[in-house]
Amino acid sequence: MNDFNFYSPTEFVFGRGRENECGKYVRKYGGTKVLLHYGGQSAKRSGLLDRVKASLEKNGIAYCELGGVQPNPRDTLVYKGISLARAEGVDFILAVGGGSVIDSSKAIAMGVPYDGDFWDFYSGKRAEKALPVGTVLTIAAAGSEGSGDSVITKEDGMLKRGTGSDVLRPRFSVMAPELTQTLPPFQTACGAADIMAHVFERYFTNTREVEITDRLCEAVLMTMLKETPRVIADPDNYEARANIMWAGTVAHTNVVGVGREQDWNSHGIEHELSALYDCAHGAGLAVIMPAWMEFVYKHDVMRFCQMATRVFGCSMDFAAPENTALAGIKAFRSFLHSIGLPINFTELGAKEEDIPLLVEKFGLGGGRTGGFVKLSSEDVAEIYRIAARASL
Amino acid sequence: MNDFNFYSPTEFVFGRGRENECGKYVRKYGGTKVLLHYGGQSAKRSGLLDRVKASLEKNGIAYCELGGVQPNPRDTLVYKGISLARAEGVDFILAVGGGSVIDSSKAIAMGVPYDGDFWDFYSGKRAEKALPVGTVLTIAAAGSEGSGDSVITKEDGMLKRGTGSDVLRPRFSVMAPELTQTLPPFQTACGAADIMAHVFERYFTNTREVEITDRLCEAVLMTMLKETPRVIADPDNYEARANIMWAGTVAHTNVVGVGREQDWNSHGIEHELSALYDCAHGAGLAVIMPAWMEFVYKHDVMRFCQMATRVFGCSMDFAAPENTALAGIKAFRSFLHSIGLPINFTELGAKEEDIPLLVEKFGLGGGRTGGFVKLSSEDVAEIYRIAARASL
Repeated sequence: MNDFNFYSPTEFVFGRGRENECGKYVRKYGGTKVLLHYGGQSAKRSGLLDRVKASLEKNGIAYCELGGVQPNPRDTLVYKGISLARAEGVDFILAVGGGSVIDSSKAIAMGVPYDGDFWDFYSGKRAEKALPVGTVLTIAAAGSEGSGDSVITKEDGMLKRGTGSDVLRPRFSVMAPELTQTLPPFQTACGAADIMAHVFERYFTNTREVEITDRLCEAVLMTMLKETPRVIADPDNYEARANIMWAGTVAHTNVVGVGREQDWNSHGIEHELSALYDCAHGAGLAVIMPAWMEFVYKHDVMRFCQMATRVFGCSMDFAAPENTALAGIKAFRSFLHSIGLPINFTELGAKEEDIPLLVEKFGLGGGRTGGFVKLSSEDVAEIYRIAARASL
Repeated sequence: MNDFNFYSPTEFVFGRGRENECGKYVRKYGGTKVLLHYGGQSAKRSGLLDRVKASLEKNGIAYCELGGVQPNPRDTLVYKGISLARAEGVDFILAVGGGSVIDSSKAIAMGVPYDGDFWDFYSGKRAEKALPVGTVLTIAAAGSEGSGDSVITKEDGMLKRGTGSDVLRPRFSVMAPELTQTLPPFQTACGAADIMAHVFERYFTNTREVEITDRLCEAVLMTMLKETPRVIADPDNYEARANIMWAGTVAHTNVVGVGREQDWNSHGIEHELSALYDCAHGAGLAVIMPAWMEFVYKHDVMRFCQMATRVFGCSMDFAAPENTALAGIKAFRSFLHSIGLPINFTELGAKEEDIPLLVEKFGLGGGRTGGFVKLSSEDVAEIYRIAARASL
C-alpha cells in the first residue's frame, strides 16, 4: 500500500427535502452574501431554485444569481461569475445543480481571490485559496459534491482541462435523492457510467496489497449494477436513487482509492470526445472505458479476472484466465448498453475519421501517460479505433 | 434509506514514518501548546515518544506530558489531565496510543473549556465545545482516530459509559502501520474483533434498501478475514497491517453505516464484561457478538444468510435458510477462535454466576434497548448465558 493523506471535510446533508435547509448550512459555514450558481431552466421550473432562495432568505442571507451553466462548463461563464462575485462582494458560492454547475462554482471560487487569470489553475497551478463553496446536488454522477476537483472547457478551441486542490472541497453538500427523480433515463445512465468509471480509474492499479480499497471499489460497483437498472425501469424509485447518490459520492471522495496508484487515462481520452462533440461525459465513458480495458487487460490478466468474478459474477476459467478477463469486460459493456448508453462511435455520434484530431488534441506528442498502463499517442489512437467499432 | 448527515473532517496522514510529521500537523491545525497524552511504557521504550517530541520541537511547539492511560481508560486520569491542561494553558491535545489514549484525550479536550464535571458528557449531555485533538495511532481497533466517540470508565463502581459529538473528531490522525507491528498477536486479534464488531453493529439493521452501505460493510469484513490471519502469522507484515489499519478507520467514521438504523447492543453488553473483569474490549466482543447473533438471528434469517454467503462464503441452503444463517455465525466464531480469541466465559476469565450482576449493571431495568432487536434484561441475561457456554 502506498502512503497517502485523506481529507474529506465536506458535511453531507442527505435525505428527503433537505434542500430546504441549505440556508442554515450556508450560515453555519460563514456565508453572508451568496452567489447562487445554476444551469438551465429545470431548477427554475421544478421550483427547486425558489425553495433554495426561500431557505437563504429565511436565514438572512443575501444573494445574487448566475444561471446558464452548460454541460462541459465553459470558461466564458466562469469569467462572468468572477466579475459578478467581486462586484457584489460575495463571500460564498452556492452551486445548485450537477457536476458542471459545481465545477463552474469551484472555478469562480478560486478566481475571485486570485489576481491572475483563473485558467492558470487549469494549466498546472495549484489553488491555495478559494471562497467557500456549498452545493445542492441534482445529479448523481460527477462526485464533485465531495471532491476537490473541477473540470472546465475553454471555449476557444474547446480545450477541456482539470484541476484539484483541497481548498475546493465543498463545505457542505445537500444531497436530496428526490431531486434526481426528474432526471431522464439517459442522463441517469450517463451518471451511472461516470460513477463506475471513477471507481475503475482507481481499481486498475499496479500497487499490490490494497485489499481494503479493492473491496470498497467492488462494493460501489456491485451497488451500481443492482441499483441502476432499477432507476432506469422506475425513475421514481427513491431507494435506488438514494443508493446511487451515496455511491456516487463514495466513489469520488477517494475513500475507495487511497493507498494506490490510479490510472485516469479513460477520463482523459473521453474528455476529447465530449470536448469535440459536446456529448455527455458519461456517454463518452461508456464508449471509451470498455475499449480501454480491451486494450490494456493483458498487462494484468488476473486483476481483470478479479473484476470479472467479484463484480460481474463471472466463473473463473482456471485453464484460460484470459477468457474470464474478457468475459468481465464484455459483461461491463453489455451492462452499459442495457441501461441505454452508446457503446461505439456511431451510437455516440462521433466519427472515426476524427481520430487523428482527437489524438492531437489529447496532446501527448511523443510522451506517455497513465498509472496502470503508460499509453503513447499510438496506443490512444488504437483505443479510439477499438471504441469506434465496438459491438456487443 | 434513512436521512443522515455525514461529517468526517479528520485529515488522515497515512504511511511509513509519518509520526515524524505530527508537529507539522499540530501547527497546521492551530496548536501552540500541546498536552502529550499516552499510555504505558511501550511508547517510551520503542522510541516513538522521542520521535513525536522531536517533531513538536522542530515545529516550535511547546508541550507538557501525561502518561499512564490504562485500557478501559479511567475518569481519575481524565480529571488529572484537565487540571494539568488548564494549569499549563494547553490549546491542543495530542494522543499517542490506541483507542483508550484517544478516548481519554477527547474527554480531557471536552473537560478543559467546561465549567462543570466532565462526566456530565458521559451521562447524556452533548459536547458543543472541545479543545482540538490530534492522534498518533498505535493500535488498529477502536476507530477513535476518525470518530466523534469516546468511552470512559468511572473507577468508582467501574461504570463504562460513552459519548459522541462532532467536536470530538480529531483534526488529524497520523496512521503509521509500522507502529502496530510490535503489538502482540493477542492485542492484534482483539483489535480485529473490535473492527469487525463496529461493522456488524451497523450491518444488522431493520432499514431496508441500503445496498451501498451493506456492500461497504461486507467489503471491510472480507478484508479483515483475509488480512487478520496474515498478521497473526507474521506480525511484521506491513501490507496486512496497513490494510487492517485503514479498514479500522473506515469501519468507524460511519461512511459504511449511514442511512440505516444501527444496533450497538453487543457493544453495550460487552462493556459490562470489560468493566467488571478489566478484560480487553475486543476479547469481550469475541465472546458476546456471536452469542448475540445466535440469540437474534430468527428476527431476520435472510440478513444472516446474506452475511453468511457474501462475507463467509457459505453456500445458500435454499430449502432451509436457517442452516445458512447458523453456518455464518459458526464461521464467524471459528474465525475469532482461529486468531486466538476467547469464545466463552471460561476462556475470557468471566464467571457465569456473575450474570445477574452484569445484567444489573447493564441497567436496563424493565426497559428495552437496541436497533435491530430490542432486548429486555432477560434477553441480555440469555445472551450472557449463551456466551458463557459457547463452543466451536
